[in-house]
Amino acid sequence: MSEYRIEHDSMGEVRVPVGARWRAQTQRAVENFPVSGRPLEPSHIAALGLIKAVAAEVNGELGVLDKDLAEAVAQAAADVAENEHDAHFPVDVFQTGSGTSSNMNANEVIATLAEERLGRPVHPNDHVNASQSSNDVFPTSIRVAAATEVSYHLLPSLRHLGEALRAKSVEFAQVVKSGRTHLMDATPVTLGQEFGGYATQVEHGVTRVTGALERVLELPLGGTAVGTGINTPPGFAAAAVEKLREATGIPFAEARDHFEAQSTQDAVVELSGQLKVVAVSLNKIANDLRWMGSGPRAGLGEINLPDLQPGSSIMPGKVNPVIPEAVTMVAAQVVGNDAAITFAGASGNFELNVQLPVIARNILESIRLLANVSRLLADRCVAGITANAERLREYAESSPSIVTPLNRYVGYEEAARIAKQALKERKTIREVVVERGHVADGTITEEQLDAALDVLSMTRPS
Amino acid sequence: MSEYRIEHDSMGEVRVPVGARWRAQTQRAVENFPVSGRPLEPSHIAALGLIKAVAAEVNGELGVLDKDLAEAVAQAAADVAENEHDAHFPVDVFQTGSGTSSNMNANEVIATLAEERLGRPVHPNDHVNASQSSNDVFPTSIRVAAATEVSYHLLPSLRHLGEALRAKSVEFAQVVKSGRTHLMDATPVTLGQEFGGYATQVEHGVTRVTGALERVLELPLGGTAVGTGINTPPGFAAAAVEKLREATGIPFAEARDHFEAQSTQDAVVELSGQLKVVAVSLNKIANDLRWMGSGPRAGLGEINLPDLQPGSSIMPGKVNPVIPEAVTMVAAQVVGNDAAITFAGASGNFELNVQLPVIARNILESIRLLANVSRLLADRCVAGITANAERLREYAESSPSIVTPLNRYVGYEEAARIAKQALKERKTIREVVVERGHVADGTITEEQLDAALDVLSMTRPS
Amino acid sequence: MSEYRIEHDSMGEVRVPVGARWRAQTQRAVENFPVSGRPLEPSHIAALGLIKAVAAEVNGELGVLDKDLAEAVAQAAADVAENEHDAHFPVDVFQTGSGTSSNMNANEVIATLAEERLGRPVHPNDHVNASQSSNDVFPTSIRVAAATEVSYHLLPSLRHLGEALRAKSVEFAQVVKSGRTHLMDATPVTLGQEFGGYATQVEHGVTRVTGALERVLELPLGGTAVGTGINTPPGFAAAAVEKLREATGIPFAEARDHFEAQSTQDAVVELSGQLKVVAVSLNKIANDLRWMGSGPRAGLGEINLPDLQPGSSIMPGKVNPVIPEAVTMVAAQVVGNDAAITFAGASGNFELNVQLPVIARNILESIRLLANVSRLLADRCVAGITANAERLREYAESSPSIVTPLNRYVGYEEAARIAKQALKERKTIREVVVERGHVADGTITEEQLDAALDVLSMTRPS
Amino acid sequence: MSEYRIEHDSMGEVRVPVGARWRAQTQRAVENFPVSGRPLEPSHIAALGLIKAVAAEVNGELGVLDKDLAEAVAQAAADVAENEHDAHFPVDVFQTGSGTSSNMNANEVIATLAEERLGRPVHPNDHVNASQSSNDVFPTSIRVAAATEVSYHLLPSLRHLGEALRAKSVEFAQVVKSGRTHLMDATPVTLGQEFGGYATQVEHGVTRVTGALERVLELPLGGTAVGTGINTPPGFAAAAVEKLREATGIPFAEARDHFEAQSTQDAVVELSGQLKVVAVSLNKIANDLRWMGSGPRAGLGEINLPDLQPGSSIMPGKVNPVIPEAVTMVAAQVVGNDAAITFAGASGNFELNVQLPVIARNILESIRLLANVSRLLADRCVAGITANAERLREYAESSPSIVTPLNRYVGYEEAARIAKQALKERKTIREVVVERGHVADGTITEEQLDAALDVLSMTRPS
Repeated sequence: MSEYRIEHDSMGEVRVPVGARWRAQTQRAVENFPVSGRPLEPSHIAALGLIKAVAAEVNGELGVLDKDLAEAVAQAAADVAENEHDAHFPVDVFQTGSGTSSNMNANEVIATLAEERLGRPVHPNDHVNASQSSNDVFPTSIRVAAATEVSYHLLPSLRHLGEALRAKSVEFAQVVKSGRTHLMDATPVTLGQEFGGYATQVEHGVTRVTGALERVLELPLGGTAVGTGINTPPGFAAAAVEKLREATGIPFAEARDHFEAQSTQDAVVELSGQLKVVAVSLNKIANDLRWMGSGPRAGLGEINLPDLQPGSSIMPGKVNPVIPEAVTMVAAQVVGNDAAITFAGASGNFELNVQLPVIARNILESIRLLANVSRLLADRCVAGITANAERLREYAESSPSIVTPLNRYVGYEEAARIAKQALKERKTIREVVVERGHVADGTITEEQLDAALDVLSMTRPS
Repeated sequence: MSEYRIEHDSMGEVRVPVGARWRAQTQRAVENFPVSGRPLEPSHIAALGLIKAVAAEVNGELGVLDKDLAEAVAQAAADVAENEHDAHFPVDVFQTGSGTSSNMNANEVIATLAEERLGRPVHPNDHVNASQSSNDVFPTSIRVAAATEVSYHLLPSLRHLGEALRAKSVEFAQVVKSGRTHLMDATPVTLGQEFGGYATQVEHGVTRVTGALERVLELPLGGTAVGTGINTPPGFAAAAVEKLREATGIPFAEARDHFEAQSTQDAVVELSGQLKVVAVSLNKIANDLRWMGSGPRAGLGEINLPDLQPGSSIMPGKVNPVIPEAVTMVAAQVVGNDAAITFAGASGNFELNVQLPVIARNILESIRLLANVSRLLADRCVAGITANAERLREYAESSPSIVTPLNRYVGYEEAARIAKQALKERKTIREVVVERGHVADGTITEEQLDAALDVLSMTRPS
Repeated sequence: MSEYRIEHDSMGEVRVPVGARWRAQTQRAVENFPVSGRPLEPSHIAALGLIKAVAAEVNGELGVLDKDLAEAVAQAAADVAENEHDAHFPVDVFQTGSGTSSNMNANEVIATLAEERLGRPVHPNDHVNASQSSNDVFPTSIRVAAATEVSYHLLPSLRHLGEALRAKSVEFAQVVKSGRTHLMDATPVTLGQEFGGYATQVEHGVTRVTGALERVLELPLGGTAVGTGINTPPGFAAAAVEKLREATGIPFAEARDHFEAQSTQDAVVELSGQLKVVAVSLNKIANDLRWMGSGPRAGLGEINLPDLQPGSSIMPGKVNPVIPEAVTMVAAQVVGNDAAITFAGASGNFELNVQLPVIARNILESIRLLANVSRLLADRCVAGITANAERLREYAESSPSIVTPLNRYVGYEEAARIAKQALKERKTIREVVVERGHVADGTITEEQLDAALDVLSMTRPS
Repeated sequence: MSEYRIEHDSMGEVRVPVGARWRAQTQRAVENFPVSGRPLEPSHIAALGLIKAVAAEVNGELGVLDKDLAEAVAQAAADVAENEHDAHFPVDVFQTGSGTSSNMNANEVIATLAEERLGRPVHPNDHVNASQSSNDVFPTSIRVAAATEVSYHLLPSLRHLGEALRAKSVEFAQVVKSGRTHLMDATPVTLGQEFGGYATQVEHGVTRVTGALERVLELPLGGTAVGTGINTPPGFAAAAVEKLREATGIPFAEARDHFEAQSTQDAVVELSGQLKVVAVSLNKIANDLRWMGSGPRAGLGEINLPDLQPGSSIMPGKVNPVIPEAVTMVAAQVVGNDAAITFAGASGNFELNVQLPVIARNILESIRLLANVSRLLADRCVAGITANAERLREYAESSPSIVTPLNRYVGYEEAARIAKQALKERKTIREVVVERGHVADGTITEEQLDAALDVLSMTRPS
């Protein structure tokens, strides 16, 4: 007895492992593409299942498939959409550029599952793929998966992070510290102002990603082979998209221009570009946190990040800013994924871009990484940050740049002399101002000097 | 007699060329930064001039400067904004990361020009830079320059290109051709559908860039040194931004969060990312045009691009698709510039990103390149394209994929046999269908076969 | 009964799943880093195991550990190096930037395994990690894994591909075809010359990657915490590296400068850059193959790629160039991975780069993808390519650029007139030359004309 | 009287400005490509001139041109090679992708100059371009320019920087400081060790760039239109390359495979990748210098960078690390340029890559930027750095990681307790060791404790 069974497709016979629910074309692809060892992302398989399910329903309603067949296919597809059969999606990401092998994988697994329910033959192409083509289904599946992951994971995580940062901004509203420009001491700011800036960065990120979704929501479904909708009955796409809207709660729409939607991946390139901005934002935030938390003795020591784990296998007691580091590594990966997507997105010809699976993998990974790490950053780092208020104020008061408010009394050049003298002679700005006679000669009064040198007041316009 | 005069700043004396309108700090920067040999972009100098002009006006209104001084500075700055003194902006792009050297260059040149008008000393810091800092002015200048170039050059060029493509889409609406997926013959499309897809890509580009502008329009002006607005009188920023709106006709606004606006370049990273999408779109269009125009004998020969210049220094009579090539080179550069901006944008720390000049250079170049090449593509290429309708129809009719509409009559697998037999025996699909008895046995009638194999009808859903 | 057991580390107690061979620090990391869901690459785990094994041996020889302990640790580590315990390496790639969590994961699993052998306590830090630090071990593991994968997978695959291309170059040595520059018909080449160029590209790739290895082979091991070698006995590094050389057959060496080797990832950035060149080379080759194989009717149809699988779920009989597509997708990914590595590699500070795990993931994936896809390209595509010699010759002879050899007889400008007239009037170059009287007036003889217009002779200098 | 004269080419008549030495094809290109406003880099024009000069000489020797003509062309070309006529090279970088317009620009200007010398007509194609094609000349010119700039500017600058860093490494050999990993206090290093690491990075950069040159030195000259060498006399390439070797002192060679050398830009992609590694190296060095020099009061304050210019237009007395900032901006640009080159390098088809001018621009700019900024970094920053030895030692001694040598006496876990207690109770490590009774109970002697806690000894293996 063999462990294989024989399946066939339009090119002939193929040996398929006995337990596999896939058939001939999937098996060919398994053998043709031993490249990365990685199958599609689960969210991608789910999206394929969902599309097959709504397509079957519409095919039933429009009479393309008979009722029973349609229902059996729809139910089988729904199980795939629940990620119940991911083990039967063995095809590598690096396969045919249209994702046809994965579309056929879905068609075959669903056909097998539907046959089991129905008790009569179900054909992967003629039945499961009816009214569809890989060329509209696969790009649609990328958009459905990306929009779903963005809507239900990334955006909530970013909002959560924004709130955590905003809360810290309020908490630290009166904690004055030295500003830093060029890494050099500048005029004072509050720690709350800094965290407020971070919060705004993340909130803008929500806006950016949301804006890009608008074009991602336009689905190529209904375009079939080349965008013309050949072999699709009128009304198929509209009905199927409506069902996708209902199933997901996401306002998908049929593409206004099927040729644009199908032959380009511009919408995904755009989304990736916006994810890249989010990555850049998080990288800045994470680096600021790392530097403010540096020390404990030989660094800035301005804030304390929560201790999560021993930091060194050799240096006892060392604790490191591990979450911000994970954030910056995610930033690096998202920047890299964006480069891959850009390269792939620029490579389309005529009616199809044939780098779809690699685009799918990279966009879905970027979404996932950013969603997960944003939540970690909020919960395991930002929420637990405490400020070393005393040290922060010391820094603020010792910065030579607090001479800046004196410009209006003594002019920029004399102020520069004061700052340099203070630094050189290790005196305070106040001492040098007095010493150089500016109070004595009435250039500035004692009260004005007090007011001018109040570091907290320097953190507000005046 | 010397060719130099002596100027000084807070660090001491500097020798400045006699004819130069700049002063000590500019001269130091000229000597400190012999890196690229390239000064700021003219649009950037203009933006600096404009900001200085409105700042002087507001300083006059608010009593920070006396009326005459304010007016003299404003007028001098307005001349700079007209690019009348670009020769006096010698500082290299690769300078201090805050752009302070260029801000001081503007301050010094304007001070000199204002002195000439006014007949009394004008100080670059105390007067021209009053109420400002490099750290709010320079990032503001990037945004003003970028928004202006986008609004008045890039968007009009993209709209123009979109219209040119749309016009061709209409012109070629009935020109049927073979679709191509994976570069292989697919079911038919019209040339008009393809150009319609291109037009939509470009129109989406307009939407993308316009969306990114929203955040670019938020100006950090008023934040001064670190975002707190130290040394700026209340109302300065609002009044200055209002004047910038009036002067440019662009709806600039004061940043909602000066800390975000000043310490990050996220808005520019976003804009660059959207320009990158436009580049990717244009690259796809240009490549399709190049391939369709390939030949004349050993290529596809589907369309004719206008002849613009001899194509080879050795092969007589050769003419090449030079404008699409320039487009793909611009795409490469914009992708590269985006990588530079991303790297730079991720490098900020605390209150300032100190990669501002390199960000400025790259974003302004990308805008300019895309604006110019889009217009060229429209006027010197797309507008003059003609179709080889006969050859296009031949291709469409010879594609084995026109068997696709027969799926519903004979099933996918038999259709595959028909296609392969046709190809192998160099027969038409129709011949093979008849030969295999599908008409004789009533599977399909002659009329159905005629209708099914009409290539133009295949370009519409059915 | 609980499914957890209690473990502890220097920060306190942790609940660890009963079946897990890891301990407290690994468990903390599992909980701290739910980011990508992906653990280290198997080749990376193997390298960590190997390093631990040789370290234990040397620790035994140097008396740092007693004989039995050293042997037990070494044997346990050797099993890890055989990838026998990969399931016990659950820590996410996106973790602490030093890879300390993965180093501790190795230490803990090996300690547990050694305890099982030895029957007495083995400490992850004091015993397994003796004489080491994450900061030298983890960077060393990246280099060992990368060098091993390059040496035993990538380079053999590239050589294999180079040979396959070279064989085709010989096979097609006399197959004349039209050259194409700017995608436009140019003077003739042979198909063999083109394949020869591809072979040279791949051979240069071997040289490039081999060159980069030189610096990758310098191992930071022995530098411990910060490069100084604190807590490592004299001779440890030299002995351990010698054992690595023996175990792998790869000429590793101790880093000449431990500070460079440990605080930077320049060597990996370089290797990645060279992989990127290989990706660019393969992309060019794959695209040429795709275009030459385009058709069968509406494309160039110059060569035939092996049929591997049905190409379309809707268009029966369609077969696509799936292997070249997988190649171009790998190229996109390698370009993206290089961008991630570059970003990460540029982010180091002081004694350590803390983006190590993301660098590791990307470099090891790039190596694997290129190795696998190169072999596929050789075996499933190049080896089976056949040429449509007749069509190729037709193209060559119809190209107007074959007028080029006439420059020497009639000058460039008259030659251009001949080419244009031939094209316009659909005549051969020969006909037009005669018609314009160049033979009659003796400018060129019949024999010279024959010789000049022989397309195969045009493929050689003359 | 008109300001234009009439020129013609194979496509007809063109109006050319009276003073212009260029002719019809250049003029067409000027009008066709108003894209960037930037002409070729001067080093590129020089290389074109040089190639034309040696080609003319060889054409004279081989009898392709008569002696006088050859000499006139060679002398004219030599003047172009001296950059004497750059003003007559107005063609935009973003032009035809083969650079044909720039090759014809060179041909036309040299023809005009040669005519002036010779007093009889000189034809740009038939004479100046004799035995050549744009398709071998232009790629050759990129390689000649790049190799020259690398050999005579970049490598000397890098060596100079390496020496400056090495000198500081010696100077600071005994300056102990706290190591930093994860930005957190680690075991001690010397400042000299850090500078030694930087020096090694730069020295490796020299090796990397030198290695890439090997393939850049292979010149495609002699391949003419498509690599076959059509219309080139035997021996032309060898003789011309020999003259290039003599003229430049650089060991150029004729390409071993003209098809690889002409149809790909792999060699330049490789060189660019190695420049990117140098950029990454310099970025790390510059960032370390910026952080060590941060302060003066609220930063690390470990070293002092030379003061070069006032740092702020608003904050008096502020001085910033402007040279390291310029370095990091160059790094960003080189990374961006590499992305552009990669994109362009991956875009070749068949016998030619048609993104040559954009590749040329980016590689030559990267070389120039790195050469100039490396020298600046050496001379205006590194050479003048001084160390704050006292503060550095304080940091080293206060770092809790100096507990590390005690692992061997008390074990990792007890050492961790000591470090944490010291930090919490603001005591020294020594105090806590004694307090916890480790000296009293003989775990460690006083002498051993002294030796173990000596920070300078921790910077060497033991």
